[in-house]
Formats: sequence, C-alpha cells, structure tokens
Amino acid sequence: MGKKINFNEKFSMFSEYWAPRVIAEMNDYQFKLVKISGEFIWHDHKKTDEVFIVIEGKMGIEFRDRKVELSAGEMFVVPRGVEHKPYAAEECKVLLVEPKGIKNTGDSEGNLTAENDVWI
Amino acid sequence: MGKKINFNEKFSMFSEYWAPRVIAEMNDYQFKLVKISGEFIWHDHKKTDEVFIVIEGKMGIEFRDRKVELSAGEMFVVPRGVEHKPYAAEECKVLLVEPKGIKNTGDSEGNLTAENDVWI
Repeated sequence: MGKKINFNEKFSMFSEYWAPRVIAEMNDYQFKLVKISGEFIWHDHKKTDEVFIVIEGKMGIEFRDRKVELSAGEMFVVPRGVEHKPYAAEECKVLLVEPKGIKNTGDSEGNLTAENDVWI
Repeated sequence: MGKKINFNEKFSMFSEYWAPRVIAEMNDYQFKLVKISGEFIWHDHKKTDEVFIVIEGKMGIEFRDRKVELSAGEMFVVPRGVEHKPYAAEECKVLLVEPKGIKNTGDSEGNLTAENDVWI
C-alpha cells in the first residue's frame, strides 16, 4: 500500500512547465501534477475525457467556441475528442486525472510533448 | 460540455455527513464530494481502488495494521480489497474519485450506506 501524497511537497520537486509528473495510480488511471505558464497547443484526446483540478493559481482552457477560466478549488472535465488549449498568465499548479498512457499533447505531437509516465 | 465546478460552492449545497454527492463524471469514473465527521465503519471495495483528496480540514484512515492522517492538500489511494475505516475528529471536506456505482460502505452495507449516484 502506498504512502500519503502531499501536493505541495511534490510540486517542490520539479520546476519545468507543461511536463506532468505522475504521483499516484488508481486502477488504470493516473493522477499527475503539472505546472503551467503561457499557452499550450491545440490538441484533443480522442479516446478519453480529461480532468483539470486547479491546486494553486489561475488558468484557462480555450475551446473553439468559448473559454473557461479556473481558479484554485475548481475543476473541469474536458470531454473526449474536444479540441482545447490550456493557458495561464502566471504559473498555475494543476492536478490532472486521466487514464494511464495519455500524452499531454494528445494527437498533436510536437516540441511540447512531454515524456510520459514520469513519476515523482 | 459541462460547466466548471467550484468545490466550495458545491459543499455549501449539503450538510449531511458520510453522504457523497456526485459533482462530475470522467469516462466511467465519478468525482464525489463528501463531508465527514466522527467514525465511519470498517469496509472494503473488492473490485476497485478508491482515492481520497482532502479539500479542507483533517481526517484519518484506519487500516488493520496502521493509521494514515491526511490534511488539506493531501491524497491517499486505498487499494482494492483493503479494509479501512475513515474518521475525522472535526468536520472534514473530502473529494473522492472512484468508478461509477461504488457504494460508500462497500461490502459492509448498514445504516451508514448512502444513496448512490446523488448529483449536486
């Protein structure tokens, strides 16, 4: 059985933006922490929904037809197949929940594609 | 596509203890908020892990061989089939993540078994 996980302690262990770190697995799902700043790229995940939970700071998710703004203590479920572009004016700390094996850039691989399954 | 979800706003909509409220679905998983106070019952979930994320306050999870104490900003994954008993000396606000259809008391049905799939 695992240990308890403290988000702040885990966030202090890395500084790169847009590079999710896995902190826990539940069945075949992973919980990942990510620090974001600036604009990500447009992408979607064809086979899965994706959950964003803001732990600290503010972020937004741009969709083709609207924007959603999120603050600490707020979450959003991006449905499978829906194009989205996360962004943050200043550093924002986020908890992601999604199935194991999902790339951060979905079907839009590029220089922001992070190594997958990196644990801290 | 859904709306953003604010944990504090959702917590203000109910007051019963040990009665999880569903706030979101991701694929076949649900995110549930629960307020806890006092001691729950011993139970396990034979077929799934279960995630506890503390949003506000402090709680503990007793296992047959140890206890884990959790504060706001901490999470724990209870593995499938492991008996556990959550408790909180004072009110604690928790986010649960688990597959749709999981009963709060697992295989130990009783007077603390809450109605399932109640959305707020």
